Amino acid sequence: MSRRQPVVGVLGGGQLARMLAVAGVPLGVNFRVVDGKADVCAAQAAPVTASGWDDHDTLGAFADRVDVATFDFENVPADTARWLTGRTRVAPNPDALAVAQDRMAEKTTFNAIGLPTADFRPVDTRADLDRALADIGTPAILKTRRMGYDGKGQFRLKSGADADAAWDALGEPAAQYGLILEAFVPFEREVSVVAVRGRDGEFRAWPLTQNWHVDGILSMSLAPAPGADALQGKAFEHARHLAEKLDYVGVFALELFVVDGDLKGNEMAPRVHNSGHWTIDGAVTSQFENHVRAVLGLPLGDTSARCPSVMCNWIGELPDVQAFLGVDDAHGHDSGKDPRAGRKVGHATVCGPDHALLRERVAAVARALNRDEQAAPVLDAL
Amino acid sequence: MSRRQPVVGVLGGGQLARMLAVAGVPLGVNFRVVDGKADVCAAQAAPVTASGWDDHDTLGAFADRVDVATFDFENVPADTARWLTGRTRVAPNPDALAVAQDRMAEKTTFNAIGLPTADFRPVDTRADLDRALADIGTPAILKTRRMGYDGKGQFRLKSGADADAAWDALGEPAAQYGLILEAFVPFEREVSVVAVRGRDGEFRAWPLTQNWHVDGILSMSLAPAPGADALQGKAFEHARHLAEKLDYVGVFALELFVVDGDLKGNEMAPRVHNSGHWTIDGAVTSQFENHVRAVLGLPLGDTSARCPSVMCNWIGELPDVQAFLGVDDAHGHDSGKDPRAGRKVGHATVCGPDHALLRERVAAVARALNRDEQAAPVLDAL
Repeated sequence: MSRRQPVVGVLGGGQLARMLAVAGVPLGVNFRVVDGKADVCAAQAAPVTASGWDDHDTLGAFADRVDVATFDFENVPADTARWLTGRTRVAPNPDALAVAQDRMAEKTTFNAIGLPTADFRPVDTRADLDRALADIGTPAILKTRRMGYDGKGQFRLKSGADADAAWDALGEPAAQYGLILEAFVPFEREVSVVAVRGRDGEFRAWPLTQNWHVDGILSMSLAPAPGADALQGKAFEHARHLAEKLDYVGVFALELFVVDGDLKGNEMAPRVHNSGHWTIDGAVTSQFENHVRAVLGLPLGDTSARCPSVMCNWIGELPDVQAFLGVDDAHGHDSGKDPRAGRKVGHATVCGPDHALLRERVAAVARALNRDEQAAPVLDAL
Repeated sequence: MSRRQPVVGVLGGGQLARMLAVAGVPLGVNFRVVDGKADVCAAQAAPVTASGWDDHDTLGAFADRVDVATFDFENVPADTARWLTGRTRVAPNPDALAVAQDRMAEKTTFNAIGLPTADFRPVDTRADLDRALADIGTPAILKTRRMGYDGKGQFRLKSGADADAAWDALGEPAAQYGLILEAFVPFEREVSVVAVRGRDGEFRAWPLTQNWHVDGILSMSLAPAPGADALQGKAFEHARHLAEKLDYVGVFALELFVVDGDLKGNEMAPRVHNSGHWTIDGAVTSQFENHVRAVLGLPLGDTSARCPSVMCNWIGELPDVQAFLGVDDAHGHDSGKDPRAGRKVGHATVCGPDHALLRERVAAVARALNRDEQAAPVLDAL
């Protein structure tokens, strides 16, 4: 073919890159992926080049072939992203990436836009930890400032007596990544805003999503979050202010706690996000398509929900698709990854015209997948 | 990755193979495509091997790598399909393919299941043509029995005086493909059933779709076809009988004329079909996903419409996506092909919660694409 089609480059070749590529094909967009290794699950949807994040020869050749570079995960070194800006367009911008990579910068930014957070203190030394505990009290959570995800790099302190154990667990990463002590937030529920901002500053958000985590990993989502009309407007405004503050282009997620009927900021993800996976089947435009549109400067698509949706993550093992694909409006999203304990290997989305029918379908899927326990909190919420 | 994922092989690498591959990725299905040339538009979604239809070495290696072989276009030689059945599972079966490839066999089969058609006669010689014209009268259409598509290989006779011109145009293909003379059907409208049958015989159909052709090429579709409740049940029964008669597995389309409020069979397509493209955005499960499910023996998905939808083909040239992607619930499907006069290069789908809003959006898209004339009949129908 002789036609010149737009090319989006993705740093990181996991399931998010895979779903971005699938969303881009109908728009006539081609994808190129770079990852530490070539045999990643995005390779089933787009060509993958193996490269280290400091391999400027390979990354330079990659940059020359793409119209814009974007990210499948937030821990691509911000320096790599900055270096790339000299070679091609990069979205979101490396400064936004840097903020999201550092829990201190992230929470400081949240506070700066008027979004309250749990009380927090930086911790670099054992003495810092004692001081922070004295300031914040317990329960509290000690976390690595950088490189944490899915609950990794965290230690929960029930009392000051846990300080030694916490330091044993995280003292070593402290030198490399820094630590942060955060007050524990006794939240009523967790919600997230998945939103998109275009090159021209246009901002759109999908309906607020309610999330349930197990062992720090997202387990289930329900969208639109029930009974959240009053909160949604506030959440959207926080997301909009955050995006403007960071001059953000593309899709991002803002995770929030609902505490005493108000919102506290937890963290942001500078990329398409697991709590937005329901948008593939349940929204007019998916988060993946809108990210592609945003980074290429195309008009953003409608972020309305088509119907209430539930997303059920597959963690550690693959379900038998035969067992649930027959349920009406149930959709499978297999990431093509090898199963491994604690690993996200895909998800199911179940949609329904109303909560009653959705509840029936989710119950049927949970039964078929032998995941009744996982689905229980969503069934309670419906 | 070490996991064994199902592999679907597709003969033919056009936009249908491309959309099948995109639909299969979320199901964890990999695709392999064979086509006469490697540089086809499906290559942006799946690996393509160049092969002739009689190259048994290449096709044998292809068959060894796939769990099931299926088709992107109906003119793969039925002999090739039959040869493949000795090497791998093939769906739909080669006999069904052979019936759909031959307008005589096709119409004879329609009549056999109780679906009336235009009167028709086989034409192999100039003398046959005169006899057929005497039997059927005019207006009539002389067509090649095989290898016709998108209005190619057809000649319309207004009166017996056109017989010489018709023979001049189609006498040569007569020897290779055979001809058929069909009485002209003064139809009120054209509709199609896109349906799917599973390995276990389960049958599902998407809502009846109304179609508009220009110069023999599908131009616009509207689904569900308005005011067609009474016809839809009949159309579904014809499609079900046809699928059972052919022991068909996979998606197919049955094109029908509405004449005096009843149905006449026009032709069938033994594959996913352009008049079912709206199902990607407008139905719970798309025709592409259900074809993948069917040929792999997975449970079939829900074929309900989520909302009324209009499909607008891009013929000959690509639209400026900037101009219409901002319309709510408007979706672009670029096939990645080089534009060429008369060539289908993609389509837009526009959805709306009701006909009034859909009409507004279709009008906005038509204006943006400078295709008011193309959209006019659909706007009249809404």
